[in-house]
Amino acid sequence: SPSSVYVALSEENVALFLQKHVRDVWDLLGARTGVEVEISEVGDGNLNLVFIVKGPKNTVVVKQALPYVRCVGESWPLTLDRAFYEAAALQEEGRHTPRLVPEVYYSNRALALIVMQFVPPPHIILRKALIRGDVLSTLAADLSEFMARNLFFTSSFHLSGPSKREAVAFWSGNHGLCALTEAVVFTEPYCPEVAHNRWTSPALDETVAQFRQDQALKVAVGKLKAKFMDSTEALCHGDLHTGSVMVKEGSTVVIDPEFAFYGPMGFECGALLANFWLNYFSQAGRASDGGGRHEYAEWVLDTSVAIWQEFCAKFLALWTDAATHQGEGFKRVAYAKPEELRAAQKVFVQDLLRDTLGFAGCKMIRRIIGIAHVEDLESIADLQVRAACEKRALKMARTLVVHGVEYASIEAVAALARKV
Amino acid sequence: SPSSVYVALSEENVALFLQKHVRDVWDLLGARTGVEVEISEVGDGNLNLVFIVKGPKNTVVVKQALPYVRCVGESWPLTLDRAFYEAAALQEEGRHTPRLVPEVYYSNRALALIVMQFVPPPHIILRKALIRGDVLSTLAADLSEFMARNLFFTSSFHLSGPSKREAVAFWSGNHGLCALTEAVVFTEPYCPEVAHNRWTSPALDETVAQFRQDQALKVAVGKLKAKFMDSTEALCHGDLHTGSVMVKEGSTVVIDPEFAFYGPMGFECGALLANFWLNYFSQAGRASDGGGRHEYAEWVLDTSVAIWQEFCAKFLALWTDAATHQGEGFKRVAYAKPEELRAAQKVFVQDLLRDTLGFAGCKMIRRIIGIAHVEDLESIADLQVRAACEKRALKMARTLVVHGVEYASIEAVAALARKV
Ligand SMILES: Nc1ncnc2c1ncn2[C@@H]1O[C@H](COP(=O)(O)OP(=O)(O)O)[C@@H](O)[C@H]1O
Ligand SMILES: Nc1ncnc2c1ncn2[C@@H]1O[C@H](COP(=O)(O)OP(=O)(O)O)[C@@H](O)[C@H]1O
Ligand SMILES: [Mg+2]
Ligand SMILES: [Mg+2]
Ligand SMILES: [Mg+2]
Ligand SMILES: [Mg+2]
Ligand SMILES: [Mg+2]
Repeated sequence: SPSSVYVALSEENVALFLQKHVRDVWDLLGARTGVEVEISEVGDGNLNLVFIVKGPKNTVVVKQALPYVRCVGESWPLTLDRAFYEAAALQEEGRHTPRLVPEVYYSNRALALIVMQFVPPPHIILRKALIRGDVLSTLAADLSEFMARNLFFTSSFHLSGPSKREAVAFWSGNHGLCALTEAVVFTEPYCPEVAHNRWTSPALDETVAQFRQDQALKVAVGKLKAKFMDSTEALCHGDLHTGSVMVKEGSTVVIDPEFAFYGPMGFECGALLANFWLNYFSQAGRASDGGGRHEYAEWVLDTSVAIWQEFCAKFLALWTDAATHQGEGFKRVAYAKPEELRAAQKVFVQDLLRDTLGFAGCKMIRRIIGIAHVEDLESIADLQVRAACEKRALKMARTLVVHGVEYASIEAVAALARKV
Repeated sequence: SPSSVYVALSEENVALFLQKHVRDVWDLLGARTGVEVEISEVGDGNLNLVFIVKGPKNTVVVKQALPYVRCVGESWPLTLDRAFYEAAALQEEGRHTPRLVPEVYYSNRALALIVMQFVPPPHIILRKALIRGDVLSTLAADLSEFMARNLFFTSSFHLSGPSKREAVAFWSGNHGLCALTEAVVFTEPYCPEVAHNRWTSPALDETVAQFRQDQALKVAVGKLKAKFMDSTEALCHGDLHTGSVMVKEGSTVVIDPEFAFYGPMGFECGALLANFWLNYFSQAGRASDGGGRHEYAEWVLDTSVAIWQEFCAKFLALWTDAATHQGEGFKRVAYAKPEELRAAQKVFVQDLLRDTLGFAGCKMIRRIIGIAHVEDLESIADLQVRAACEKRALKMARTLVVHGVEYASIEAVAALARKV
């Protein structure tokens, strides 16, 4: 069995492992002996080990899964096999958006290990960039391209029915990570008996109690969970929050697709927009320029709008082009007239916006009252100020989940964010 | 490779095959030599060989797939592996509704062959029973039970996320048959260039031309096709028309699940209801009692209503019961109050009715203007009379596809059938 071979690497033995077992990568590093290689473990995520391995010529990243949820401990086991799916997802994304993902140099399923391209400074994690207030001129273009191309090319729009179902069969194997999402995003935040739920207390106690009694909200969340479980529209990154994106001005790299699965496209779009909106609400609580950073908050909100709009434009362009719309979905032969295609596209975008808003709402809620929170809000030290931001975010989130279908455009959603 | 072993059996060698290779079945037949066994090939379906094998003690059925679509010929190849999935589906259904499916005695993947329980006379194919005017007192109860139990127990309501995704992975392999449905149900009827489309001509020429120009219809069909391709709610029989059911008074047996796949529950319910409604419209064209058999038509329509109502009642009962609702979908812990469960169930039934009506409409259309027609209508010799029945069916079908969402109850749908 794979797990009998597995051993977690440490800063002490990563270099030796590469020297002995991954000769190509060792040559890339350009070191003669281990002493010429600098190792630092930088995993700031919740789940895995991440080693930066710096040689005289080049630097690489070694990421290894642990057999449990790192931020919880060994009491919450998690399949090692996620590293296999992460490597496969990086490779699949590499085919559609090579510019936007790290290259995989080597992967080892038994060791749950990936050696990949280093994303060098001054790239930082997008969440941190949004917290410190960076303006990034290509961010919306890059993220919309990432989503449009990867979702389109893995969907029924591009694939034949059989190829699509073969892909679904393969990716269904990553069900351990899906189960984690099913629990922490869609269920636990609404369950009083889950001890690891957290929120800004006592300020949010009443809101949390209300959410758990909120029938309309819970039924809508249940429907979205069912869609998460029962829809296989496209290969989703599966964890596309602002902590899974590294940026510097003019460059965007999406990392960490270990949650990759065939799911509803709205889950992918919703996850990303939710994290922009969480940051938007956090800006009002940033003391830096007193009374919040209004102008930067507007940039964050505008960027979320632009991501959606550019995503739609790029996705529809791939659908409109016969060279890329080769799949069984809305098969071209049945929609020969341009106005038929446009009508189908209009309905598609409406439905996807509805799903996107619903999933975005779920994601916002779970980051405020569930197990895993976001630094954007957690870093607001004053609990009253933080709670005020969180309350606005929760209000918007509930509206998106329960009334998302009433929002016909992303501008209307941005207006909602401004006024809640 | 499996296909190198494959050879199609004939009436001449079926007995010898069983005698040599399937000893248990041979013993069941109770024959000492092949001369004591009577063989007849009865395959009236579109795809496969079906041999009735009668021995002195017992009779069994030997069904074997051919490597092409039987009713079209060798020019349309079709995967032999469907027999493997058919056997697996019969076995899965056998776990949930043993009374309602034939038992599998033996199956052989390489030979694409299944030996199963014989459903004896006076059972006949339900389609033929509805054509001749049989009243069957347990039909609605049995078919609603078949659908409710098989859909429920293979869905996220009963299964954990991981088990459900493992099941999806397995059944995704039956993609060749899904591709056939994608083509003949959702695409070809709307494409002038498909030569094997047929309809009652010239009476329906104009309607067919209109349908192919009907933007609202085609976009709605495209959405339903996307749902067929991208939804994995439950293991569906996949070909649940009245030709896949054998009946006698008090007994119902569902055969022929070779199209089994994980798909939207509405596809399953819609397929069955569509075939009742096609029969309903055909009754007005039956000369037997002059002016159509009004009373029997009402029984057919009432039965379709009862199937839906009893299906919902049985499915919701399984959901309400903690002993069967063990799955990740609408996880019980988050819906502890009875009124929360009821609210979730109400939304579920509404959504499922909408899907069911849409898929039913697609199925009705394809049986009148696509490749494969139904005997209910084809047996009406007078083409004007037949076309009049078909026009009403098409009118209802279009309404279901385009306006299905506006029908809040199955009674409203029955009223529509009566008045179109
Ligand atoms: N390819 C890379 N180049 C540079 N830094 C990386 C790379 N991959 C990961 N990191 C760093 O390691 C951190 C954790 O990596 P991540 O893949 O998100 O792990 P986890 O799955 O545990 O969240 C990232 O936030 C980033 O700072
Ligand atoms: N188990 C059975 N018992 C009795 N008759 C059967 C049985 N299975 C099939 N048949 C007969 O053979 C016909 C074709 O079988 P079916 O499984 O529907 O094949 P196909 O996949 O080619 O449509 C049925 O309509 C029925 O008359
Ligand atoms: Mg991460
Ligand atoms: Mg991760
Ligand atoms: Mg059949
Ligand atoms: Mg049985
Ligand atoms: Mg069949």
